[in-house]
Amino acid sequence: MIRVGIVGASGYSGEVLVELLSSHPGVELAAVTSRSLAGKPVAEVFPRLSHRLGSLQFTESDASALAQNDGLDAVFLALPHGVAAGFARPLFEAGKTVFDLSADFRLGSPDVYKEFYGQDHPDPELLKAAAYVLPEFPLKGWQEKPLIACPGCYPTSILIPLLPLLASGTIQSKDIIASCMSGVSGAGKKANEDFSYCERTESARPYGQPKHRHLSEIEEQLASAAGSPVILQFLPHLVPMRRGIVTTISVPDNGKTAEDVLVAWKSQYANRPFVRILEDGTLPESKNVVGTNRIDIAVRHDARMQRLILTSTEDNLLKGASGQAVQLMNLKFGLEETIGLP
Amino acid sequence: MIRVGIVGASGYSGEVLVELLSSHPGVELAAVTSRSLAGKPVAEVFPRLSHRLGSLQFTESDASALAQNDGLDAVFLALPHGVAAGFARPLFEAGKTVFDLSADFRLGSPDVYKEFYGQDHPDPELLKAAAYVLPEFPLKGWQEKPLIACPGCYPTSILIPLLPLLASGTIQSKDIIASCMSGVSGAGKKANEDFSYCERTESARPYGQPKHRHLSEIEEQLASAAGSPVILQFLPHLVPMRRGIVTTISVPDNGKTAEDVLVAWKSQYANRPFVRILEDGTLPESKNVVGTNRIDIAVRHDARMQRLILTSTEDNLLKGASGQAVQLMNLKFGLEETIGLP
Amino acid sequence: MIRVGIVGASGYSGEVLVELLSSHPGVELAAVTSRSLAGKPVAEVFPRLSHRLGSLQFTESDASALAQNDGLDAVFLALPHGVAAGFARPLFEAGKTVFDLSADFRLGSPDVYKEFYGQDHPDPELLKAAAYVLPEFPLKGWQEKPLIACPGCYPTSILIPLLPLLASGTIQSKDIIASCMSGVSGAGKKANEDFSYCERTESARPYGQPKHRHLSEIEEQLASAAGSPVILQFLPHLVPMRRGIVTTISVPDNGKTAEDVLVAWKSQYANRPFVRILEDGTLPESKNVVGTNRIDIAVRHDARMQRLILTSTEDNLLKGASGQAVQLMNLKFGLEETIGLP
Amino acid sequence: MIRVGIVGASGYSGEVLVELLSSHPGVELAAVTSRSLAGKPVAEVFPRLSHRLGSLQFTESDASALAQNDGLDAVFLALPHGVAAGFARPLFEAGKTVFDLSADFRLGSPDVYKEFYGQDHPDPELLKAAAYVLPEFPLKGWQEKPLIACPGCYPTSILIPLLPLLASGTIQSKDIIASCMSGVSGAGKKANEDFSYCERTESARPYGQPKHRHLSEIEEQLASAAGSPVILQFLPHLVPMRRGIVTTISVPDNGKTAEDVLVAWKSQYANRPFVRILEDGTLPESKNVVGTNRIDIAVRHDARMQRLILTSTEDNLLKGASGQAVQLMNLKFGLEETIGLP
Repeated sequence: MIRVGIVGASGYSGEVLVELLSSHPGVELAAVTSRSLAGKPVAEVFPRLSHRLGSLQFTESDASALAQNDGLDAVFLALPHGVAAGFARPLFEAGKTVFDLSADFRLGSPDVYKEFYGQDHPDPELLKAAAYVLPEFPLKGWQEKPLIACPGCYPTSILIPLLPLLASGTIQSKDIIASCMSGVSGAGKKANEDFSYCERTESARPYGQPKHRHLSEIEEQLASAAGSPVILQFLPHLVPMRRGIVTTISVPDNGKTAEDVLVAWKSQYANRPFVRILEDGTLPESKNVVGTNRIDIAVRHDARMQRLILTSTEDNLLKGASGQAVQLMNLKFGLEETIGLP
Repeated sequence: MIRVGIVGASGYSGEVLVELLSSHPGVELAAVTSRSLAGKPVAEVFPRLSHRLGSLQFTESDASALAQNDGLDAVFLALPHGVAAGFARPLFEAGKTVFDLSADFRLGSPDVYKEFYGQDHPDPELLKAAAYVLPEFPLKGWQEKPLIACPGCYPTSILIPLLPLLASGTIQSKDIIASCMSGVSGAGKKANEDFSYCERTESARPYGQPKHRHLSEIEEQLASAAGSPVILQFLPHLVPMRRGIVTTISVPDNGKTAEDVLVAWKSQYANRPFVRILEDGTLPESKNVVGTNRIDIAVRHDARMQRLILTSTEDNLLKGASGQAVQLMNLKFGLEETIGLP
Repeated sequence: MIRVGIVGASGYSGEVLVELLSSHPGVELAAVTSRSLAGKPVAEVFPRLSHRLGSLQFTESDASALAQNDGLDAVFLALPHGVAAGFARPLFEAGKTVFDLSADFRLGSPDVYKEFYGQDHPDPELLKAAAYVLPEFPLKGWQEKPLIACPGCYPTSILIPLLPLLASGTIQSKDIIASCMSGVSGAGKKANEDFSYCERTESARPYGQPKHRHLSEIEEQLASAAGSPVILQFLPHLVPMRRGIVTTISVPDNGKTAEDVLVAWKSQYANRPFVRILEDGTLPESKNVVGTNRIDIAVRHDARMQRLILTSTEDNLLKGASGQAVQLMNLKFGLEETIGLP
Repeated sequence: MIRVGIVGASGYSGEVLVELLSSHPGVELAAVTSRSLAGKPVAEVFPRLSHRLGSLQFTESDASALAQNDGLDAVFLALPHGVAAGFARPLFEAGKTVFDLSADFRLGSPDVYKEFYGQDHPDPELLKAAAYVLPEFPLKGWQEKPLIACPGCYPTSILIPLLPLLASGTIQSKDIIASCMSGVSGAGKKANEDFSYCERTESARPYGQPKHRHLSEIEEQLASAAGSPVILQFLPHLVPMRRGIVTTISVPDNGKTAEDVLVAWKSQYANRPFVRILEDGTLPESKNVVGTNRIDIAVRHDARMQRLILTSTEDNLLKGASGQAVQLMNLKFGLEETIGLP
C-alpha cells in the first residue's frame, strides 16, 4: 500500500483527489490537510463520500510536519501556484515523492514562469528535480524524478491531440489555433460573485485572450515535441457547465489528411487506456467523458481551408487534474495504470 | 415625472429596480447609490442595460444627502434588514416617499421582529408611518402612508392565493402547509461558495425549515385577513434556477371545492392586471411568469384527502420584489398600475 | 457469476443498469435488448461506458428467445408498464429470476392497478409469484419469490422515511403530506418537446397533482406497515436538474419529537449501507447522493405546528430505480449487498 | 399601423415574433398561423404572453388565404427552408411585403443553395425579388425589394465584426477562422431526444464541422464586401444554455492593430443602436445581450501570433432571427429603427 497525503484539499482538485485516493485499492489515504478546514472531519465536508472516509480529519497544511511524517510515501499538492513550491522543498528533502498539481514545476524556465505568472519562481533550484509528465507522452526516465509536475487541464486537452502530430512531422508548428470551452469548476472553488450560480447559468464568454497562463506550458511542451519553438493561439471560453473541457484545434493540413492524423495518433496511443480515438468520424462530447479519466479525440479535414480540425474532450478535474495525477502515481509506483480510476 | 432614487443598487433587487425605473415613462431616475460601487458608471456595472443609462453614476449611500436632495420625490431602499431603517428615518423626515424592500417595516410588532430577525427593531417608532401593502389586497388608506413596506418574495406567493380565501371564510386557518421552491437569486447577490455555480447547478435541497424569517410576515398578514391568529407550516426549498418561485399550498377543504376557491379569487382579483387565475385546470409553471410582474395561481381539489391544493408562481425579483415595488409606486402616485412593468 | 440480461435498455433506467451490471464483479452481462436499437453495438450507444462493453450488441427484445436462453440466470425488465408483464410470464415459466422495474407487479390489487394505470392488469395471475421489495424494509421470505417488483423512485423516497415510523406507531397514518421534487430524467428518455432543454432549463412546476400513479404503491406499502389503510397527499414537482429527488414529508407529530423519529429510524436502518440518517440536524441535498445508491434522511420538529418534517433525497436512477434493482439482485443471490454499487 | 401576419409560429423564432409584434406600437398582429396549432388560442400556447394576445387564434398555414387577405401588409415567414419559398411566391404576387427567416432567399446562387442544402432551390426565379439585408450593413436600395431575406443567427454574429474590416481593407480575406458557441434554441423547437434536457444539460460539443449550412451565406456576404471570393473556417459548438451565441474570430492582423479595427467599426456602426463596440478592452458575454436585440463586439490583438481576435455575442432568437426581422420591418416601413425592440 502506498501511503499518501493530500495538501490543500479544500478545492475541487483536492476533493476529487480525496474521492479517488480514498477508494483506491493500492493506497492508504493517511493525511488530508487544509488551512481553512483543519480539525473538521473530512466526511462532514464531503458528504457525498462520507461512507468511505471513516474518522479521517483535515489537519493543518504544515510542510515540515508532513515532511517528518514517516507514514507518508507520496504527497499530492493541490495548492495555488507560488504556494506549492514552499511545500515541495521540505517534502523533496525528506525523500517523499511529490505530485504537484500547481504550475510551480510545469515550466523549465523561471523566466517564462515570471512572464506568465507575474512573480519570481519561488524555488528555481528545485526545477531540476522535477519532470512535467503527460502519461501518454512521457519524457524518458521520468519515473526517476522525485517531483512530478502534473499537466494543467487545458494543456492536457491540447497536448494529447498535438504532440504526436508534431513529433512525427505530420503537421508543422505554424499557425495553430486552439479554441477551448471550459466548465466553471476550472476556475476553482472560491467565493466569487462572478462565479455564482446566478451569474454563470445560461451564459458563455471568452476570457484570458490572448495570453492565458496555460499558454506557457503548452508552448514549452509543443516545442519539445517539435524540436523548435512553437507559438500557439489559445482562445479559452467559459461555458455554463460544472465539469468538462471541449477543445477544437485548427491547424494547416501540411498536405495531410484525417487518415494521416489517425495513423500518428494510433501509433502513439494504441493500447493507452485513457485515450479514445473516435475513428468513425463522430465528434467528441463532454458528457461522454465527464466522470471518467478518459480523453476523447477526433479529427476532420477541412479541405476547402486546407486545415485539419482536431477536437478533444476531457473532465477537467479528472484527466485534466486529479485523475491524471493518480494515473501518474500508478505508473510511478509500478501499479496498473487504470487502478482506482473511473 | 416622479423623480426617484435607488439606495443599495448593487444587489439583484437593486439591479431590477434600475432596469425598471430607467425605462419607466413616468419616472426620472435621479440617483442610484451603492457603498461598494460609488463612483462607477451604472452602465458599466449593468452592461445589459447600458443603452438607457447614459452617464448615470453610482453615488455613496448617504442617507442625509439623499434626504436633502430636492430633486427626489421617492426613494427605493434595496438594503439589508436592519440597515434600511436607518435610511428610512431621515428620508421620512424630509418628506420623501419611501418604498422599502427590506423586512424592517413589514411587521407590526417589534417583538416578532426580534424573534425572527434576532435583533431589536432599529426604529420601532417609525412603524406607525409604515404600511405593508400587497397591491392586490391592500389595507384601506395605505396611499396616505409615506413609508411603504414591500412584501417579500415567498410571502407574495403565499398571500395572494390565501388571503381572499381566509377573508371570505372559504377556508379556515388551521393546518395550512406551504411547500415552496425558490431560484437561487432569492439568496441575493453575494460572493458565497455555497451559491457558486458548481455547488448549485443540478442540485436541490430543503432549507430554513421550520422557522424561516418570512414566516413572520406571512402569519401576520394571514391573521389580519382571517381575523384571528394563524400558524402556518412553511417548507422552503432551493432549486437550480436563477429566478422564479413555485409555491404549493395544502389546506383542509372545509367542505369547499375548487369552484368555491375560484369564486373567491375572482371576486378579489377580477381586473387585477398582475394576477392570472388558471381556471382551466392547468398548473402554473415558473417560465410562464419569469420576466414579468405576474403571479399565476391555480387550484385543485384532492377529494381523497379533503384538502385543496393551491399553487402559484412568480418571478421572485419582479412580483416578489422590485416589480411589485414599482407597481406600488404607480398606484401611490396615481399612475396606471401597469406602466413601466413587463 | 450471475448471468444477467437487460430488456428494454434504451431508456435511462436501462442505461444505468448497463453501467452497473457491466462492471459488477459478480455478474456476466450476457444480453442487452432493445426494440429500437437491436443490432447496434452497446458501446456505440453509450460512449461513456464504451471501455467496458467490448463487442456486446443490442438484440431484439424477444421474450421467448430470452426465456429459452440457457445462459441467463436473471433478467431485468426496464420496460413500460403494461409491456413488462408480457415478458415476465415466459421468463417466469422458464425459471429465470425476474427483476421488474415497471409498475406491473408493484400492486397487490388488479383493481387498484386499473384505477391508477387506466388499463386492466395484463397478468393478474402472475401477481402471486411477485414480491414488492424495498431492501431496507423487506417482506419476510421475499427471497423465495421468482419475480421481484422494484419500487418506484418517488415511492422509495417516501417509504424509507415513513415505513419504520408507521410500523412502530411513532406516527399515525392521518394527514400525511409529501411534497416532492424530481429531476427531469424521472420522465424517462423520450423525444418530447416538453422535456427539451429549452423548455426545462431554469423552470419548475407542479404536476400530477393530486393523483399521481405512484400514489397507489405508496399507499399500499404504507397500509401494510401501518396495519390499516393509509391515504396520503402526494405533491410532485419537476425541477431543472437531470437526476435526483428531494422529498419533504409533513406529518402530525403525535406527541413525538425528532429524537423519537431518530430512534425508530436507527432501529430499522442501523447497519444498512445505503441509508444515511443525518443525525446532526443538517438537511439533505441531492448533490450529496446523486451518483450513489444512497438515500439520505433527516427529521426536524415544527413544534409550532405540532408536525414533524421528514426529508429525504436519492438519485432517482440509482436508489430510485436501477441501483436498487441491483441491490435486490445482490441480496437475492446471496452476494454482499453493496457489491457493484457506487 | 402595419398589419402583419406570422406564418409557422409554432417554433422559437415564431414565438419571439409573436412576442415582439404583439406589443409593437406600430403594428397590428392580424394573423398567426401554424399547421400543428391551428384552432388553438395563441394565448394558450404562449402563456407567458397571454395578457396581450386577446382572443387571437392560430389559423392554418394557407398561402393563398394569406395572399388574398386584404388586412395584411406584411408577412413574416418562420418556416423551414424549402417550405418558405412556396409561401413567398403567392404573397409576393399579391403585393405583400415578405420577411423570410428561412434560408430560401439568403443566397444569390441556386447552385450554392443546392450544394449546402442538398436540394434544388424551390423558386430560383423569385431570387431576383429578394434582398439579403443585414440592417447595419445594407445593400443600397434594399428598401425597394418586396422580399427581405433575414440573416441567420451565426452569420449575423460573424458578419457584423468582419464586414467593415473587409470592406475597408483593414484585413484581408485569407485564413479567417470563426469558432462559435450556440445555445440550444438554435436547433429549433422540436421533439428530439438529442435536445432533451437530460442530454444537453452540463455538456458541450462541436458539431457541423467543417461545412455547416450557414457557411454558404457567410461566405457570399463576405465576398461581396471584400470584392473577391472568401473561404472561411467555421467551427460551431453547442453549449448548455437556452439562448445566446458567442463568436470568436481569429484573423491575420495584416499589420494592423486593435485600434485600426475600432476605427473601421466606429466608422460603420457609430449611431447604430443595436451594435455596441466594447472599446475598453472588455470581452463580451452572452448574458449581457440575451433578451435584447443588441450585438456586442470587441477586438484584441494577439501580437505573438500576428492575429486579431474579434469577439461578438448576440441573442440568437433576437438579433440572430426575429428581433432583426422586426428591425428590418421598422426600417423598410419608415418607422424608428428601435421601436418595439428590447
